[in-house]
This record gives sequence, C-alpha cells and structure tokens, in this order.
Amino acid sequence: MQQVPAQLINKQCLTQSLAIIEYLDEVFPERPLLPKDPLQRFIVRQISETFASGIQPLQNLGCLLKVSHQKEKRIEFAAYFIRKGFDALEKLLKDTSSKYCVGDYVAMADLCLIPQAAAAERYNVSLDEYPTIQRIFLALSELQPMKKAHAFGQEDCPAEWKFEGALKSQISGRNLKHSLNHNQTYFSTFYLYDIQQ
Amino acid sequence: MQQVPAQLINKQCLTQSLAIIEYLDEVFPERPLLPKDPLQRFIVRQISETFASGIQPLQNLGCLLKVSHQKEKRIEFAAYFIRKGFDALEKLLKDTSSKYCVGDYVAMADLCLIPQAAAAERYNVSLDEYPTIQRIFLALSELQPMKKAHAFGQEDCPAEWKFEGALKSQISGRNLKHSLNHNQTYFSTFYLYDIQQ
Repeated sequence: MQQVPAQLINKQCLTQSLAIIEYLDEVFPERPLLPKDPLQRFIVRQISETFASGIQPLQNLGCLLKVSHQKEKRIEFAAYFIRKGFDALEKLLKDTSSKYCVGDYVAMADLCLIPQAAAAERYNVSLDEYPTIQRIFLALSELQPMKKAHAFGQEDCPAEWKFEGALKSQISGRNLKHSLNHNQTYFSTFYLYDIQQ
Repeated sequence: MQQVPAQLINKQCLTQSLAIIEYLDEVFPERPLLPKDPLQRFIVRQISETFASGIQPLQNLGCLLKVSHQKEKRIEFAAYFIRKGFDALEKLLKDTSSKYCVGDYVAMADLCLIPQAAAAERYNVSLDEYPTIQRIFLALSELQPMKKAHAFGQEDCPAEWKFEGALKSQISGRNLKHSLNHNQTYFSTFYLYDIQQ
C-alpha cells in the first residue's frame, strides 16, 4: 500500500496498525493492549476500528489529494468525516471510558485516539465539542510514551518545533498544526513497551 | 456511525465488522475465524485490515457522495482506491494464499475479500487483472454460506434478481452490478456459523 507504519520482523514487513498492535499484544503478553473479557475486548476493538477505518482513511493525505486540488475543500471533507466519527465515539466513550477509553488501562483504542484527536485540530475540529474525547486525550498526553511518540518529541524533529516537556500547554494552546506524525499510533505502541521493560 | 452491520447482543449494539468477527471468534472457539499461530494471525488481520480500512471506507456510498455529485467522478475515485488496495493485496496473497487467503481454511480475511471483490466490478475494476484475488473469490463463492450471504440469495431479495444456485455463472458473467450487500461480510460470518451447528 506504500503506507506507514511498516515494521520489519524476521525479514517480514508488517503493515496495518491494528494488525501490528494485535500481534504485539499476543507475542508480549506481559504488556497486554487488550483486556481479557471478550465483551471488553470487543469494545476496545470497536472503538479502535471506528478510528482506524471509520475516520483515518477518509482524512489522510492520500485520500484528500484525490478529493480536491483545493485546500479548503480537502479540509471540509476531512472535517466532515472526523465529526461524523467523533459524534459516534463521544457517545460510545461516555459509556465505556474511565481514565482512558475503556477503564483505567491504556489499551489499543487509546493508541488510536491520540493521533486522531491531534489530527482533528489540523482540520479545524475543536476538541472542545467533544469533552470525553478531549478528557481522554489530555490524560493520555501526560504519559511518557505518548510524549515520546509525539512528532514534536522525536529525535529527528526540526529544532524549531521540538519541545522539552511542554506537551500539555502545546495541546491546550492548539499549536498542533503540522505536528501530526502518521506513525504516532505505532510509535506510541512501541514506546509503551519500551518503558515497561 | 449510522452504518451497517450492527448486531444486538444482550441489548448492546455491536458495530464494526472486524471487531464483531473477532468477538465471534472468541466466544465460539469451536469455529475459529483466525489461525492459532501469532504470525499467521497477524497475516489474516493484515489482509483483513487492508480490505476494511485500506479500501472499503474509500469506496462506500457515504464517502462517494461527499466526493462528487457526478457519478463518473465517484466511480473513478472508488476504482482508484480499489486498484491501489488490490495491487498490494494481489502481491501479498500470492505468498500467503493456498485455497483461500491464508491456507485452506476460511478465515476473517476471506470474509472481507468476498464483498470487496464483488464490489470491484461495480466500479469497473475487473478481477481478471488480479488472478489471485479472482481465484480465491471463485473458490469462496462455491461455499454454501457465501451463496446464502449473497445479496441475490437473501430472503428479501426482489424476485427479478434472485437466483437459485446459479452463483458461479452470475459471477463469471459479471452480472454483479447492484448486487452488493453492505452486510455481506457480516452475513457470511453468521452463515458460516450456521452451517457448522
């Protein structure tokens, strides 16, 4: 698909974010990314898939460049589908969330929420309209793996964008434009393992 | 999301195809829809996600109606993303498939291939260009649950479209336009359980 993320394991190129996360969950059981109960697992996957197939493909650059040559039309298109997805997710998350998307444990759904919530503001969708999504986003943003995965926190980030521990104010100050890294779900996942080991 | 499929279990509305399939796989272990080996499970999920998030959202009606008011532009947009996905999947499936997508056992990836391969021809993407996808599609189409799940085989299908055991000729005759049922993945899954019990 010529898309990121892609991960090489045993010379095999692994692609597709949720498939990679499920694989890591299974081969590193000491750091589960899904709960044990089947219905809870369903809910984590339902939320994850709403982000990963219900919103993400409709607002990524590959899609938007085919939608229109006009930037305004691209932003309108992306915002429409982000709102549609967030409207559904806000209702769902009101029931399922505690500190994070499902309970108080960082799971696959949270790794999908982080980059999509950041991307929303790029397309003029304010998280103020979605208080539950915003609350979870801010709680997740406090975590070290999420800071490390943020585009502004990565090693190869240009110096003028790089931050040192100033993530929360960056987020509430809505300076996130151009900050989204398409690999963020993937990096968050890896850094989550990183700090556990 | 106001989308299909949606399934009520214990008054809870389950949505998102892959999350529903994973749930069924877990609560009915006597009819697995994923293999046991983690890398094989990854491959089934990778293929499934390429269909479910890499192609499907970009060619469904909700997206296309936002892309353009002109039917020709909608068809061109859908065909572009179906080809992009199928190009990647054709290469992948050459390595992973035997009778079906991964080996000789009907798994989650096959349930995603069936409706997407049928939909391809609606957007003038011929399966002749994708011999591996076409071969798997025809093999799957021989199975009773797939015939039963086909839009032309369902109870409420209008009489003029209904077929009686003529699926294969319908497919090779490319009479599939207007036949795709958005619930096909879902119905295939349920009918697969149906015949096993």
